[in-house]
Amino acid sequence: MSELRKDPIVGRWVIISPERGKRPSDYASRKTEKKEGFCPLCPGNESLTPPEVFAFRKDRTDPDGPGWNIRVVPNKFPALSSEGETNRQCVGIYDKMNGIGAHEVVIETPDHGAELPNLPLSSIKKILFVFKMRTEELAKDPRFRYIVIFKNRGLEAGASLQHSHSQIIALPIVPKRILEELKGGKRYYRDHDRCIFCEMIEQEAQLGMRLIEENKDFVSFSPFAARFPFETWILPRFHASSYSTIRQPQYQTLAEILSSTLKRLDEVLVEPPYNMVFHTAPIMDEELPYFHWHIEIIPKVTRVAGFEWGTGFYINPTPPEQSAAYLREVALS
Amino acid sequence: MSELRKDPIVGRWVIISPERGKRPSDYASRKTEKKEGFCPLCPGNESLTPPEVFAFRKDRTDPDGPGWNIRVVPNKFPALSSEGETNRQCVGIYDKMNGIGAHEVVIETPDHGAELPNLPLSSIKKILFVFKMRTEELAKDPRFRYIVIFKNRGLEAGASLQHSHSQIIALPIVPKRILEELKGGKRYYRDHDRCIFCEMIEQEAQLGMRLIEENKDFVSFSPFAARFPFETWILPRFHASSYSTIRQPQYQTLAEILSSTLKRLDEVLVEPPYNMVFHTAPIMDEELPYFHWHIEIIPKVTRVAGFEWGTGFYINPTPPEQSAAYLREVALS
Repeated sequence: MSELRKDPIVGRWVIISPERGKRPSDYASRKTEKKEGFCPLCPGNESLTPPEVFAFRKDRTDPDGPGWNIRVVPNKFPALSSEGETNRQCVGIYDKMNGIGAHEVVIETPDHGAELPNLPLSSIKKILFVFKMRTEELAKDPRFRYIVIFKNRGLEAGASLQHSHSQIIALPIVPKRILEELKGGKRYYRDHDRCIFCEMIEQEAQLGMRLIEENKDFVSFSPFAARFPFETWILPRFHASSYSTIRQPQYQTLAEILSSTLKRLDEVLVEPPYNMVFHTAPIMDEELPYFHWHIEIIPKVTRVAGFEWGTGFYINPTPPEQSAAYLREVALS
Repeated sequence: MSELRKDPIVGRWVIISPERGKRPSDYASRKTEKKEGFCPLCPGNESLTPPEVFAFRKDRTDPDGPGWNIRVVPNKFPALSSEGETNRQCVGIYDKMNGIGAHEVVIETPDHGAELPNLPLSSIKKILFVFKMRTEELAKDPRFRYIVIFKNRGLEAGASLQHSHSQIIALPIVPKRILEELKGGKRYYRDHDRCIFCEMIEQEAQLGMRLIEENKDFVSFSPFAARFPFETWILPRFHASSYSTIRQPQYQTLAEILSSTLKRLDEVLVEPPYNMVFHTAPIMDEELPYFHWHIEIIPKVTRVAGFEWGTGFYINPTPPEQSAAYLREVALS
């Protein structure tokens, strides 16, 4: 079983996952070619994934066979395992616990070559609904404290399979980055009695220069202190701390802005590898006045070097105002 | 001029560096081949770098000509500029300041093909001395608060030049990661009246399973909560918060452990790309009882994916006990 370990200095948890057990020789050949050919996520190969936990299927088709449009399966090589107790313990100055959690794969389309933003809006809406539905299901497990929804596109962004998919991980701890956002949001709220994200949305809408797109419910912009070229955030314009508060008409507006924002990135950066992560409040929390759920999209177009790792201080060679201008100007078909 | 901007939520500073001005098309071609051929860091090409700020040279050779063994020059494409004032200001909810700082390149050897760990110990000692000497020089500038010494080896680790070199950046702020280490160290010191790094060194020496090497003054081990396979730290066994406290006999013992630790990584991972960063106390601080300078080495053998970026929570497929065992067992020539 994998293990969760806490760095005693800065309090960061890591998953030590020896099941994925890589030997030095696995790292020594640093291949970056795309693997083509056989795909375990394609229709017809359902028996090669663990049994599905959910699917949108054509009538009268059986689970774990073809006929699905969206299919959710446990990850075959999960970073965390769902059986057992967390069993928190100290080893001298160190804290650790069992690697308990859930790790699911959302196969977004049966079409091997299709990409998320180019799916019909009706499909993207269903994917967004599946994210919420699986989140709510996993949140019922009392061992879990946090659920991350994310998508890696392209090998350079860490996607080992090309077939369009997202992932959901349920964790027994709240990750450091989210704790920092909660803390920062709380501090601002205490001083100003307002949500800092709401403030930011207002300021960006007024200034316009980092704005990419907006609709009735959502806005996308390049953040003021963007760490990466073309880093892009999508936020609800209304205050809500948790993704699972999303309601029916908002699936449509979120699907629209997500699709067009990703299309803009594909156009400007020529189908870049990217990571997309949903930042939402921890499971147990009530609606929080100081936190605001949002999506962060980071195209992988630069290499993060020693300076960045060592300091948590990033060098971004493209100002967000420039990124936003390029992205705004795309003519969407 | 570049700009420093602060994320208003988590307080992270970034350098927005439009001088390095990259357009989308620069990112769209994601080439990873090594550039061969002309090298601006080689002897004979001194006129192609800015004038040297320091060099170890053969007698009677002129600055900015051949005859040097180690040469320090300002970065030709600096992330920060040394002219002007920081001029801190607010823009609505955002903080920014001018991108004031220094960015130097330490060319470690005139030999284009040589790698740091394979240089004679006498040369490595001199490089370590140069790090201290330049740090002390830059620390005199009242605009600077922090100095980072780091090395990127290999294109995948962000090195744009193959010729062996390190970099020194002086910053007008203390980076977030260092602030976190200072805060974590301070908290532990308050509760236990001891340096957490000293505690960690003691515990690792007793347990032995994550230990890689030790000598009279230094120790190298794989940290308990390693984020990455083969992540390796080197620490002085004596308490010292700042690298600039290093004294004469310690250059020898540090050169020894640095050389052999890097040789072990080269052997086990077949000359991996890596980042190496010196973590030291901020400039103005006196000797701190709760912080302990150290070197972090991160081989770039996995890709950091969406989950990690989104959460600050890492998945490491190789337990540090295994990394350490592989590294310990290397027969050094």
